[in-house]
Amino acid sequence: MNFSSKLLENAVNEVSQLPGIGKRTALRLVLHLLKQPASQSHHLANALTNLVDEIKLCKQCHNISDVDTCEICASHSRNTEVVCVVEDVRDVMAIENTAQFKGLYHVLGGKISPIEGIGPHNLTIDSLVEKVKKGLVKEVIFALSSTIEGDTTNFYIFKQLEEFNIKTSTIARGIAVGDELEYADEVTLGRSILNRIPFENSL
Amino acid sequence: MNFSSKLLENAVNEVSQLPGIGKRTALRLVLHLLKQPASQSHHLANALTNLVDEIKLCKQCHNISDVDTCEICASHSRNTEVVCVVEDVRDVMAIENTAQFKGLYHVLGGKISPIEGIGPHNLTIDSLVEKVKKGLVKEVIFALSSTIEGDTTNFYIFKQLEEFNIKTSTIARGIAVGDELEYADEVTLGRSILNRIPFENSL
Repeated sequence: MNFSSKLLENAVNEVSQLPGIGKRTALRLVLHLLKQPASQSHHLANALTNLVDEIKLCKQCHNISDVDTCEICASHSRNTEVVCVVEDVRDVMAIENTAQFKGLYHVLGGKISPIEGIGPHNLTIDSLVEKVKKGLVKEVIFALSSTIEGDTTNFYIFKQLEEFNIKTSTIARGIAVGDELEYADEVTLGRSILNRIPFENSL
Repeated sequence: MNFSSKLLENAVNEVSQLPGIGKRTALRLVLHLLKQPASQSHHLANALTNLVDEIKLCKQCHNISDVDTCEICASHSRNTEVVCVVEDVRDVMAIENTAQFKGLYHVLGGKISPIEGIGPHNLTIDSLVEKVKKGLVKEVIFALSSTIEGDTTNFYIFKQLEEFNIKTSTIARGIAVGDELEYADEVTLGRSILNRIPFENSL
């Protein structure tokens, strides 16, 4: 691309560093900003700068937070003995939206993935083990996505926690509510039969 | 969406103002930035701020530029008597990439579109008419996209320039190089036959 302006080129280059945004899309976004009042770009720039400069990770659950201890960890109405292990803040948001979980979270910050060079020590697993060692936790729920990386991470943590003799569980795998049976993959369908639940529990 | 952090929420809201980016994509982009070194977000924020604060429009062709007169208008090797009318900077970049045009540009900044509330006076048509009136221009090439808005804009400008008795032309419509004839729409195919060119010119 031949740009008529260095400023434009620079902005397009920076925007196109974002995942899934190529040069053409970046140019479209930047030209859109140029058509808006300058204040919109200033607000965007400030929001991003403030975010990276001031964001904190909760000291207890490692979730993204504005303060040292996040709202969920600081709440008195949560059951501190049940900890749900998730990958990142999006999973916390998703589970919070269901309003079905009243325990605390533990955000790993990723999954074990040798291909991407992420080992157990790049995650917050040690801090989880520490919590369990102190006897603060009675149940750990694994809520990672069921990919090879997710299953590996679950198993690694499970092994670390085995000696402490606490309850460990994993979220149920099965046919999603509203899904057609015929389109379900066989692994999921097979598990949903093996792990069937008493009918009265599903009402 | 329930955010665990105001800073995060604010950044997601600002990013999701961009066209084609919803809340979920915005969250993905913002979390990506949080995983990168803070300098990347600073560079992005600075690039956007500098762009909107310092960008200029070339006084002659109204193209986006870092200086008062853009590189193309300032060049001595361009034919100043031929002016190509385009919608925005992307079209200038596209035509410059072909290396087939050695005249100047005139960037309208949009197309006449009553639905979006864009009339002739929101565009730089008056400045084009002024140039022609001064006798500086011998040919005007219309290179707007062939939509209803593009055709309307072409016709409006054509009517404004009629009295000055200069050459006006429009870019050729026809079957794109490499396209299969059978998939071409009938209007394009019809025009490509009506406006056929001597075979030796196509070599």
